Amino acid sequence: MQYLHGGDIYRNAVEYDFSINVNPLGMPPECIRAANEGILLSASHYPDYQGEALCQALAEKEEIQKEQISLGNGAAELIYGLCQFLRPHRGKMAAPSFQEYERALESVGAELVFWDLCEEDDFAVPEVFAESVQGEEDIIFLCNPNNPTGCVVEKSLLQKIAMKCEAAGTYLCIDECFLPFLGAGWEKKYSMIRELEEYPHLVVLRAFTKIYGMPGLRMGYICSADKNLLEGIRSVLQPWNTSIPAQMAAVAALQCDSYLAETYKLMEREKEYLKKELLNSLVKKIYPSKGNFLFFTGCRDLKERLLEKKILIRSCGDFRNLSEGYFRIAVRTHGENEVLIRRWRELLRGDGGIYGKSDYDTGDDV
Amino acid sequence: MQYLHGGDIYRNAVEYDFSINVNPLGMPPECIRAANEGILLSASHYPDYQGEALCQALAEKEEIQKEQISLGNGAAELIYGLCQFLRPHRGKMAAPSFQEYERALESVGAELVFWDLCEEDDFAVPEVFAESVQGEEDIIFLCNPNNPTGCVVEKSLLQKIAMKCEAAGTYLCIDECFLPFLGAGWEKKYSMIRELEEYPHLVVLRAFTKIYGMPGLRMGYICSADKNLLEGIRSVLQPWNTSIPAQMAAVAALQCDSYLAETYKLMEREKEYLKKELLNSLVKKIYPSKGNFLFFTGCRDLKERLLEKKILIRSCGDFRNLSEGYFRIAVRTHGENEVLIRRWRELLRGDGGIYGKSDYDTGDDV
Repeated sequence: MQYLHGGDIYRNAVEYDFSINVNPLGMPPECIRAANEGILLSASHYPDYQGEALCQALAEKEEIQKEQISLGNGAAELIYGLCQFLRPHRGKMAAPSFQEYERALESVGAELVFWDLCEEDDFAVPEVFAESVQGEEDIIFLCNPNNPTGCVVEKSLLQKIAMKCEAAGTYLCIDECFLPFLGAGWEKKYSMIRELEEYPHLVVLRAFTKIYGMPGLRMGYICSADKNLLEGIRSVLQPWNTSIPAQMAAVAALQCDSYLAETYKLMEREKEYLKKELLNSLVKKIYPSKGNFLFFTGCRDLKERLLEKKILIRSCGDFRNLSEGYFRIAVRTHGENEVLIRRWRELLRGDGGIYGKSDYDTGDDV
Repeated sequence: MQYLHGGDIYRNAVEYDFSINVNPLGMPPECIRAANEGILLSASHYPDYQGEALCQALAEKEEIQKEQISLGNGAAELIYGLCQFLRPHRGKMAAPSFQEYERALESVGAELVFWDLCEEDDFAVPEVFAESVQGEEDIIFLCNPNNPTGCVVEKSLLQKIAMKCEAAGTYLCIDECFLPFLGAGWEKKYSMIRELEEYPHLVVLRAFTKIYGMPGLRMGYICSADKNLLEGIRSVLQPWNTSIPAQMAAVAALQCDSYLAETYKLMEREKEYLKKELLNSLVKKIYPSKGNFLFFTGCRDLKERLLEKKILIRSCGDFRNLSEGYFRIAVRTHGENEVLIRRWRELLRGDGGIYGKSDYDTGDDV
């Protein structure tokens, strides 16, 4: 199976990239300054292979022990590290979900079990998922909120799943990379990061990439109460896996509280704006996404047509349990969102008017 | 076994770091500028997972096909990727040599076979090494010039080894990360990078880290004529393994010809200076290193004593087939080298004079 990725601006002529889910405010200036300082230090120093300063700062922020944190060159590296170390015979994931779990499991020859989420339930993970945990899998991946649907799993269900995993000796990897976009109250409501000690088989993935707008710099982390597991993951990775600029930018990011506040406000406002516009004749259905992105159905060639207008969106036809006609767009700044809507409507007019019988009619696509 | 690393300035009070073998001229200004630009792009873009611009530039420089190159987050990542993909049952390496081969082989549970190099031969790889290749190992690692000794393997011997590996179906990984320091004629004389097509089991490792002074940024590459092998290595690594700043700095580096010329001149001059000074009562024996570093024997606690003077050197007692009293220092700028020599001599005077019966006597150490 060939995997596609969002964000391939390198082989597409793109002015506006809605295909990757990163903070539209860009990297905080404090992080850019720190990363630039990091470049200068990079000339004469290797990165700290223990990432001590960053782990310490993260431990304080997450209120966990710094020994429960291990850094990765983006969260993606840690998904591979986890699979390389555990070498599961069988791994389960929801479908659709982030494809790197699948690719990482495949890379170690694991048998893949997919839990097909139902369109009728808006692709939510159902309560019976917990019942399905019977020790037949060595690891389960869950993305919360899920990529590409933006669907969240309630904490009570996560706890049930974690409990079943504990009883079955199954590792549970919860990817919370998009969780920080939900705003102030999200941590208590959805995150499992404070429950590590109750569930030794639980690992939680987080990233700076998305919430702090640094996808090109790469920085993620994995948290677990099982120190042998973290040591094991480190043993299959090189010692200097995270760069100095990334470490320094991440340390600076943890001070950027007002940037986060601004992010929450922008997300709330712009999601509403985009939803309203999209539902006004542009798409067939928008699914209830809690992430910093919208998931919807539209005309099959929407991606190609928007690309003619130099706008890149994520076609989700390559996700398991989805088909052509499903799309994901990032929520971006108001100016960018306006451009998206304007150019999208231009496509419709070119096809005979917004309300005409065009390919972009809201009637019978997908 | 616990592995130690050079360059641990994060837990040592260090003014001068002679423990890591990177270009003392620092990163070329063109690379710093490019990396700074890369930081800005990193806020809104993922790295090009194909690293197309860099692979293209490298292909032209190395005169090989760009499909024969795969990028890594430093060469170290590729050592792990190679082992994770091939999962050798048995791997061979010379001793002493770069410890990451050992750690990477261990991480996949491979049986390790060490070829003990002889002190009497100045730790050179002998001709009989080629005879030992009988298909009993799945992979052999050779570092040329070797780290920590600086010893080179002649090309005729490398070819013999490569031929035997080919016949035996054994992969041969030649790590040429330090080779660019040898100067203009080195490529033809020692490098195997132009012989990939003759030996499909041959892989050659290279890095920007050392020669272009960017250890904190991380960028390396692996070359092979076996495209399935390169694809396999990519399959065990995340797609976005090299950062945008690193990719951009590396592209800029390939234009820095005068920087390389200056590097060669500095290396030639400063190696002579350091050798002369070291042989003047500071060390017992210097081995013939062709690398950008010197390897020698001295007093057992030399590292700790120099650290009191805020100078960090690499004690090599943790390398296999070496013991306490072996050391490696990087060749640095004249000013830095002078400081090293001055502070080192201060130690001797503190112990009763350079020629006195001090611990730093050149007589009976090691």
